[in-house]
Amino acid sequence: MEEIEVHELKKVKLNKPVLIEGLPGVGNVGKLVAEHMVQEMDAEKIAEIYSWHFPPQVLVNNDGTVRLCKNEIYAWKSKNQDLLIISGDQQSVTNEGHYLIAETFLDFAQQYEVSRIYTLGGYGIGQLVERQKVLGAANETALVEEMRKYGVEFREEEPGGSIVGASGLLLGLGRLRGIPAVCLLGLTSGYLVDPKSAQAVLKILCRALNLEIDMQALKDRAEEMEKVIERLKEMEQAQVPRMREEELGYIR
Amino acid sequence: MEEIEVHELKKVKLNKPVLIEGLPGVGNVGKLVAEHMVQEMDAEKIAEIYSWHFPPQVLVNNDGTVRLCKNEIYAWKSKNQDLLIISGDQQSVTNEGHYLIAETFLDFAQQYEVSRIYTLGGYGIGQLVERQKVLGAANETALVEEMRKYGVEFREEEPGGSIVGASGLLLGLGRLRGIPAVCLLGLTSGYLVDPKSAQAVLKILCRALNLEIDMQALKDRAEEMEKVIERLKEMEQAQVPRMREEELGYIR
Amino acid sequence: MEEIEVHELKKVKLNKPVLIEGLPGVGNVGKLVAEHMVQEMDAEKIAEIYSWHFPPQVLVNNDGTVRLCKNEIYAWKSKNQDLLIISGDQQSVTNEGHYLIAETFLDFAQQYEVSRIYTLGGYGIGQLVERQKVLGAANETALVEEMRKYGVEFREEEPGGSIVGASGLLLGLGRLRGIPAVCLLGLTSGYLVDPKSAQAVLKILCRALNLEIDMQALKDRAEEMEKVIERLKEMEQAQVPRMREEELGYIR
Amino acid sequence: MEEIEVHELKKVKLNKPVLIEGLPGVGNVGKLVAEHMVQEMDAEKIAEIYSWHFPPQVLVNNDGTVRLCKNEIYAWKSKNQDLLIISGDQQSVTNEGHYLIAETFLDFAQQYEVSRIYTLGGYGIGQLVERQKVLGAANETALVEEMRKYGVEFREEEPGGSIVGASGLLLGLGRLRGIPAVCLLGLTSGYLVDPKSAQAVLKILCRALNLEIDMQALKDRAEEMEKVIERLKEMEQAQVPRMREEELGYIR
Repeated sequence: MEEIEVHELKKVKLNKPVLIEGLPGVGNVGKLVAEHMVQEMDAEKIAEIYSWHFPPQVLVNNDGTVRLCKNEIYAWKSKNQDLLIISGDQQSVTNEGHYLIAETFLDFAQQYEVSRIYTLGGYGIGQLVERQKVLGAANETALVEEMRKYGVEFREEEPGGSIVGASGLLLGLGRLRGIPAVCLLGLTSGYLVDPKSAQAVLKILCRALNLEIDMQALKDRAEEMEKVIERLKEMEQAQVPRMREEELGYIR
Repeated sequence: MEEIEVHELKKVKLNKPVLIEGLPGVGNVGKLVAEHMVQEMDAEKIAEIYSWHFPPQVLVNNDGTVRLCKNEIYAWKSKNQDLLIISGDQQSVTNEGHYLIAETFLDFAQQYEVSRIYTLGGYGIGQLVERQKVLGAANETALVEEMRKYGVEFREEEPGGSIVGASGLLLGLGRLRGIPAVCLLGLTSGYLVDPKSAQAVLKILCRALNLEIDMQALKDRAEEMEKVIERLKEMEQAQVPRMREEELGYIR
Repeated sequence: MEEIEVHELKKVKLNKPVLIEGLPGVGNVGKLVAEHMVQEMDAEKIAEIYSWHFPPQVLVNNDGTVRLCKNEIYAWKSKNQDLLIISGDQQSVTNEGHYLIAETFLDFAQQYEVSRIYTLGGYGIGQLVERQKVLGAANETALVEEMRKYGVEFREEEPGGSIVGASGLLLGLGRLRGIPAVCLLGLTSGYLVDPKSAQAVLKILCRALNLEIDMQALKDRAEEMEKVIERLKEMEQAQVPRMREEELGYIR
Repeated sequence: MEEIEVHELKKVKLNKPVLIEGLPGVGNVGKLVAEHMVQEMDAEKIAEIYSWHFPPQVLVNNDGTVRLCKNEIYAWKSKNQDLLIISGDQQSVTNEGHYLIAETFLDFAQQYEVSRIYTLGGYGIGQLVERQKVLGAANETALVEEMRKYGVEFREEEPGGSIVGASGLLLGLGRLRGIPAVCLLGLTSGYLVDPKSAQAVLKILCRALNLEIDMQALKDRAEEMEKVIERLKEMEQAQVPRMREEELGYIR
């Protein structure tokens, strides 16, 4: 086994595609968006990536079969805009692996002459989100201005510090290769899978790509999560009846 | 020293053997089964595997001598079914090592033209097991159906998530090489060495391999463990007299 | 991507320069001094160093753009004394990386025929510093004597034990290459960024290099920190009114 | 820098020397013995070993100079028995490094045609030692018998489990190379540097090697430690006056 193995399943012809990355992370926001896109758009899997930098385990499918932890690349062709979409089970668990797998994605991007990269993720604020927002970062100043037009917020103090993992490294390492890249981070509590935040990110992305994607599946999941949150709130209030409403944000 | 060293002690001729892996893990279930089989069937050691991915220590034998941490491969010949059995002191302590040692086992399997792999382990449920069961996972859909016939349970929700270490990776990496593989996980509390769970796993395995193996040694160890558990229960009740019976499951 | 990538931006001619290292560490003392020097002296960036031993993340700038974690080398020319200054976002997060990146700095030092190295850092004492002091260590006995003249203290018991990271390794590995090197450690609490300690270190360094550098910017930051500390003290006293003054040192 | 660098300072001619290893570990027993021997016997340093598997730091000497973490090999010639002694500042901090550095020692041992290896350490029992004893382990059955004659105890249940680090690996890896090796472990509390345990180990070693070594320096250090322990006991009794004497063992 190689340190990183790219299993190409299919060669496709794409016209200056945009690359979208949505791997597991805070609130699973990025992965939710990428998987929703793959399903709704019926994108085609063209490559699988295995690596000993992923956790040493297999995941069990509902039918009793298993699969190795892997990342996957999908392709989607259309008249306006071709896409490459990266999603997967896990990110690297080693420091070195994070860098090398991001480089593997960029090799792939250059091979397909990718014109731009969007990396997707969540930005955890430690309490329930009142108003959905999408924060941004980019590897070129011009991209910051362009993204503001689509409703992305760039704040002096936030996302603050650093963007960890593939969503960050694709911007940083992409810059060294001259590939324009933007990171979109949906505000999220950070404690729960957040399909509502995923919707907010997807809306911006659709605007930027001039695409229309049905969001019903994400809305349904968001409603389910709302019920979970309601139940958690009730349990909490039953247990801690004297805790005031505004304090709940910190422990949910 | 190489990263992974295979010391072949003997070349044997085997007829499409089945490979059985039982290394240390939850409840030590897999190791108990593999070591019981080696002893009862008088299997012959044919290889030792050393690696700097094992813990940097030696183990002290009862006679005052020591041995390096290692994995071992045993061979057993019979009219019906030849076997290769993997057991050992430890699994890898590094991420990379888990993958590379599993690949080493698979190289070995291919060299001996292994027809199928059974990996054995425990599935910890966090409380004492009321009814022994064996859960399964496989790397081919057909194997799931076959295993159900032998009494293996495949549940939509369990083993749930992931199977860590050699027992999982041999399925996942084996699939990439086209080797059929099944994982059998005995239900166990997860807190104690569990020879009773090992018996349950061995029974299924014997059925699947059409083998008969005396289980007295495992029964004896299970009885000893029962006494240990009884004593632990008594100690607990003495200390926490007002704790209700059903709560004990969580802390045993 | 290479394990360590040196991106040389510019070749400069320097006359037996002195190398100064100030990377993040205790109280950020070293980094504060190095960055202050780069700014006040308008030193020129001549190289950037990237490595997969840095954290797998990008840092977000105030304008919404990002940068990879990196170390930087600056050059400064003058009639008396040319300088090379190393600063950066992070130090290695792996054991091996610490050694290899320090060796990269030393390769660079030898290429520029560096005559001496000063490494800068903080020495955390676990409580607020009453009297600013600078402790020293060196990789040659003669340097210890010379440094005492500039006000550096060498104590039998302190800095005690070890100097971790680039500030230590440049002395130790530098000795193997025959490059004289001194480490200057400003006393600091260890809990807060400490521009006051940075001033004390810079004063000594200016004396040793026979340089004059305006310190106003560091003084301003030190005053801001003083206010932060005052507020922390007040908050603490409000919360724990009965705690005696001398005990506060341990929890600040 | 190489992963492991052996700096040979001197070539000596030795007659089938015995190799003694005493590196830092439980109670620092092994290091105390090895360093005492080097000093009392005036052994000559013949090699230094540097590695990026040691901690990324320098140690500060009392005169203000620093040294890289390293291991050292000393030689001692006599009419009866030549010796090689390994001591040093640290052991590897990585899994792989433990194996590779032990292999480096064994390469050295084979180059000098070492006839036997003694590895020295402490065996922590979690309470103050009432009667000094030295437990043993060996990589050949014949050595177990021989060692019993010198007063080494081999117990079925102890040292129990495993011997971690160089003291263990030199036996295990030495066995693969056919070099006879014994590990001597002095009983010690495990909480404090233990020169008394070191004396017990040294006594056995002198008997086995038919050597006489003055132990006054170790006795002096042991007396100092006794005073420290007395003071700790007093402090403890002052704080927890109702705790019974036999319970103290667990918290000292």
